[in-house]
Amino acid sequence: MSEPRWLSPAEQRAWRTHLAVHKLLMHRLDRELHAHSLSLNDYEILVNLSESPGRRMRMSELADVTIQSRSRLSHQISRMEAKGLVVREDCRDDRRGTYAVLTDEGWETIQRVAPHHVRGVREHFVDRLTDDQLDALVSAYTPIIEHLKKLR
Amino acid sequence: MSEPRWLSPAEQRAWRTHLAVHKLLMHRLDRELHAHSLSLNDYEILVNLSESPGRRMRMSELADVTIQSRSRLSHQISRMEAKGLVVREDCRDDRRGTYAVLTDEGWETIQRVAPHHVRGVREHFVDRLTDDQLDALVSAYTPIIEHLKKLR
Repeated sequence: MSEPRWLSPAEQRAWRTHLAVHKLLMHRLDRELHAHSLSLNDYEILVNLSESPGRRMRMSELADVTIQSRSRLSHQISRMEAKGLVVREDCRDDRRGTYAVLTDEGWETIQRVAPHHVRGVREHFVDRLTDDQLDALVSAYTPIIEHLKKLR
Repeated sequence: MSEPRWLSPAEQRAWRTHLAVHKLLMHRLDRELHAHSLSLNDYEILVNLSESPGRRMRMSELADVTIQSRSRLSHQISRMEAKGLVVREDCRDDRRGTYAVLTDEGWETIQRVAPHHVRGVREHFVDRLTDDQLDALVSAYTPIIEHLKKLR
């Protein structure tokens, strides 16, 4: 293998900045959700289910949209079942499939916690960027998302 | 609590784009590192130790720079010890302290894997952004990093 093109100082700074902002942000939002007995992973599942028809999604689809393995999602859903937030249901029309279904308690939880979470997202991220910066972020990252999705 | 200011469609798009690019990117880079029997978490520890004097860091400092709890880092280091990449050593000048120290095998591993990893970082991120976009990223996110560090 030939010598790689190492990152320039400017590239390295950008890369490390990207990593740092994300890590600090997730750490902070996760901690704020803990005050409501949720993790950021729980929250993401609740949002996805709450926005789906019948407040349910196939486990395979949920693993796909939350970008995690089936086995990791399965553990996550088991923990959320124990907290009464979701239940598993077999698909009637597909013997191999299982749904994750939001319970009434899960629905009430997302309704109650979402206002707090959105305040955190604003305080720590969205309100600290101008409209132009938000648009630039979408322009810069959307092609990268398209590229990475093709590789999955 | 008053009604929160929900995210506008543009804000929501930016926020979800930020989350998606990071998740897909980490997923991809982690997967590429698996070909070298490392995780992205392993890699981050190896980089930090390899750049430190004596190729060692106090566990408390390592937890701090990698933004994770002491207990989570401790599990991580135990897994890496089992792979022969690091060892723990007591600090001579501080009975309460423990160092994580890179082994020769850990050093050789990071030297061997870094060229592959930097190719991935370029292919999936850095080379897909212009110099201006990289600079804009640093300008936009540095104040957020400063803000979040103050809250820790």
